[in-house]
Amino acid sequence: MTTVPVPVVDFDTSPDRYRHWRLEVDGQLARLVLDVDPDGGIVPGYELKLNSYDLGVDIELHDAVQRLRLEHPQVRAVVVNPWKVNFCKFSNEALLEIEDASARSGQTWIAALNGPTAGGGYELALACDEIVLVDDGSAAVSLPEVSLLGVLPGTGGLTRLVDKRHVRRDLADVLATKAEGVRGRTAVEWGLVDDAVPPRRLDEAVAARVAEALARSDRPAGAAGVELTPLAREVDADALRYAHVTCTIDRDGGAATITVHGPEAVEVPAGVAEAHEQGAGFWPLAFARELDDLVLRLRTNELEIGTWLLRTRGDPGTVAALDELLLAHPDDWLVGEVVGCLARTLKRLDYSARSLFAVVEPGSCFAGTLAELALAADRSYMLDGLREEDEERGLAPATLTLTGMNLGPLPMGNGLTRLQSRFHGRDDALAAAQRLAGTPMTAAEAASAGLVTFTPDDLDWDDELRLALEERASFNPDALTGMEASHRFAGPETLETKIFARLSAWQNWIFQRPNAAGPQGALRRYGTGQRAVFDRKRV
Amino acid sequence: MTTVPVPVVDFDTSPDRYRHWRLEVDGQLARLVLDVDPDGGIVPGYELKLNSYDLGVDIELHDAVQRLRLEHPQVRAVVVNPWKVNFCKFSNEALLEIEDASARSGQTWIAALNGPTAGGGYELALACDEIVLVDDGSAAVSLPEVSLLGVLPGTGGLTRLVDKRHVRRDLADVLATKAEGVRGRTAVEWGLVDDAVPPRRLDEAVAARVAEALARSDRPAGAAGVELTPLAREVDADALRYAHVTCTIDRDGGAATITVHGPEAVEVPAGVAEAHEQGAGFWPLAFARELDDLVLRLRTNELEIGTWLLRTRGDPGTVAALDELLLAHPDDWLVGEVVGCLARTLKRLDYSARSLFAVVEPGSCFAGTLAELALAADRSYMLDGLREEDEERGLAPATLTLTGMNLGPLPMGNGLTRLQSRFHGRDDALAAAQRLAGTPMTAAEAASAGLVTFTPDDLDWDDELRLALEERASFNPDALTGMEASHRFAGPETLETKIFARLSAWQNWIFQRPNAAGPQGALRRYGTGQRAVFDRKRV
Repeated sequence: MTTVPVPVVDFDTSPDRYRHWRLEVDGQLARLVLDVDPDGGIVPGYELKLNSYDLGVDIELHDAVQRLRLEHPQVRAVVVNPWKVNFCKFSNEALLEIEDASARSGQTWIAALNGPTAGGGYELALACDEIVLVDDGSAAVSLPEVSLLGVLPGTGGLTRLVDKRHVRRDLADVLATKAEGVRGRTAVEWGLVDDAVPPRRLDEAVAARVAEALARSDRPAGAAGVELTPLAREVDADALRYAHVTCTIDRDGGAATITVHGPEAVEVPAGVAEAHEQGAGFWPLAFARELDDLVLRLRTNELEIGTWLLRTRGDPGTVAALDELLLAHPDDWLVGEVVGCLARTLKRLDYSARSLFAVVEPGSCFAGTLAELALAADRSYMLDGLREEDEERGLAPATLTLTGMNLGPLPMGNGLTRLQSRFHGRDDALAAAQRLAGTPMTAAEAASAGLVTFTPDDLDWDDELRLALEERASFNPDALTGMEASHRFAGPETLETKIFARLSAWQNWIFQRPNAAGPQGALRRYGTGQRAVFDRKRV
Repeated sequence: MTTVPVPVVDFDTSPDRYRHWRLEVDGQLARLVLDVDPDGGIVPGYELKLNSYDLGVDIELHDAVQRLRLEHPQVRAVVVNPWKVNFCKFSNEALLEIEDASARSGQTWIAALNGPTAGGGYELALACDEIVLVDDGSAAVSLPEVSLLGVLPGTGGLTRLVDKRHVRRDLADVLATKAEGVRGRTAVEWGLVDDAVPPRRLDEAVAARVAEALARSDRPAGAAGVELTPLAREVDADALRYAHVTCTIDRDGGAATITVHGPEAVEVPAGVAEAHEQGAGFWPLAFARELDDLVLRLRTNELEIGTWLLRTRGDPGTVAALDELLLAHPDDWLVGEVVGCLARTLKRLDYSARSLFAVVEPGSCFAGTLAELALAADRSYMLDGLREEDEERGLAPATLTLTGMNLGPLPMGNGLTRLQSRFHGRDDALAAAQRLAGTPMTAAEAASAGLVTFTPDDLDWDDELRLALEERASFNPDALTGMEASHRFAGPETLETKIFARLSAWQNWIFQRPNAAGPQGALRRYGTGQRAVFDRKRV
């Protein structure tokens, strides 16, 4: 394995390598403790720039959430002592992963706040199911971003206050403008925490909640977890290669080609027991982990690569056979977790600020789970017929196939399937597409069903794709980001899409403004003893 | 009347003074024609800066929509030939007013596109119920903002494509990146327009749609409209005075005090017939028009006045009596229109980027319709008991009273009442508050019902209010804008809130970015023959 010595952000970690958290698993209970650097202070808030320390906290949090679900299926309650997190898309995703674990994995997350909990620390607590605050006359929860830093609690803080914890909007206004926060019984009355107890009763109060959580969970008691072994990854200057996913980067064109290599027939387990035996090697799990890692690395380390081409290679029938296995065992805990991994990885594509083009060619396997890649794309190109080289290789024309995996198990953040989002408000077209599940569609059939955008034949294929890529690379990438975010999520909004679509957009805007980021702005002046100077115009 | 000769934007207009539109009313049909300046060119898009010409187009459009509803109740169909509009909050509101007229006033708005319709012009068409495009081989609908200007079709364009017209997301992607737009049958197939007809058939096709619209409308046939007489307004350097609303500006404090003077008993009509006779003088209509004008002027001309204090003076019982009249005649067309005006004016408060503080004191009349001002506020202060000066004036302690007007007729943009938004997810608290309708509440009672934020007594009142105002004025106004927008709209999202909360936030962000607004940005370079230079990093 080659490792290129460039300063890239790496998302690999494991509990024995954590620098910021300590993960303790004790039977059905886990504890996630921030290993506090005593010199770090308790100053709330986040840095404007990508800060490797801050991102490191989230990388470890993300890793811990995954391992608690897959390696420790017996865990029913997680007690967390939050400290701080920073604001970035990955932080938002990490907190949503906690809520996903609550919703899908029968885990109760309990935030035990034994001291002042400010900013991102309280945002992390808000992502938990229950919050217990010590009532010692000084401990408070606070969101001091507006008052101290001139920015927003952008990791879902504002949205979770009113939309999740149902804090009254005027009390939310008071909290979010009060640097010192809210303590004790008032915090309970306002709905900011669930309980406030004297220091001597904190452990007991948390233990009571843990006991209730353990009793009501349906997590499997005696199940053996799946060890999340390190990903094998080969990194070159312009390529990343995993077992099932490869990526090549065209720096001049500003585009990356992501190719998923579908499962071989021999990789499909005979039954769910064999899937358990395969563990981290079970194809859907291995694929999801690799694609997730690739997306995170491209997002973080390849900022100028604005377009991602999504391709697949393999046998659509084998993908469909694996889908069938997943669909046949919805109550198996591992199958549930694997489907959850797939769902979260696909959501990460939806939330990536990159243009996604799917390319459906002969030899590809856009079926079921992998057809979601085409449905996640901003547009898709499907070759109608064969090119000379396809004929030489004896390939059949490309097909696109829906399976049951496209009809429910892999929802987007808005709660709809990608098919439902695609045909939002067009129930007939949706029903017609759903009826085609199980039928491999030619380019003409897929186009007629509204599942692909363009179906050039071999004469036009190369030029059309090349021109589309050149054109995309010529546009203002910021405008593309806003446009794509607007088009991807038709229909209803959820807490999750509100956080990405509304709160993040406001926060992005505020971060660009001189009042926050300018030389005299609040972010620059914080901690200097100088007051920020604001242009008072409301816009 | 004193007029101060400062360069303020004025929102007064009437059809005889329109500079940009021609409004023709012909029985049940109205036509709204843009009076094209032949030198204006057909270049699509909007200006970065507030452009008095562009805003002028919207001011006239807003005026025309109001007059068609109130002065011409017989109008059932409106044919509009859109050209261009600019991007600003007021433009968004003006287009939403068209959709509100369709939804509430039995009017069908038909966009007849007899030539290329680009950018804001197509956004205006998207706000109409039906769109007919001439099919002459050149006429197209287009949204060239991304490709030519590096910004977004921010007046609802992207949201209306996928959420209103249910255009498939990949086709929306293609349209919004294709400067030349989409023509003829393809535009129909993609759902961009409802029909495409040869030039010789355009009038006939529009006439057929008009005939259908006239037949299905329930607009009153023989009703006499209400003439929207010019608002009497007195403007000083630091004050605006209308008949029922006054405003004083504290420039040092960055705050404006808006005082609504409630109706006198003699102003309450004996019945709905008398309300019709009162016409534009009917108190709720007069109040709504004045407050709307004030809000628009403060928003546009007083950018540094970041906090608005909302006060009322008068008799709560008289307000409640007027509410009763409105509630008793839901089927009367004028009552319907007046309630619609009140609803739209209150929404404009919700969408204003200003901190709203309600101040409930002895002598005030926060009842029913006027209690919505307190519910629209980001926080509220209600005096518990009396101050010395209140006792001297023989005043009773302040009360807050809900009426039926708080329980449905004045929804926010999210489709909920302000009470429902306030108690989102807390159904018990909502039901308890609703049961209090009709009962004047003291400060303690209103606080206990969760309807006010703070209830200082006379000892604390002055200091608490002063400190709150000083503190608010010390914060980054941009952070306040993002925070307030996030707190005001708990719960569900609608096309309307998506346009304000998501699309506008993205557009605001993009407008701050060097790629759009910088010296080499797309907006600056457009039309110069030079290509924009982009930082290609995706963020």
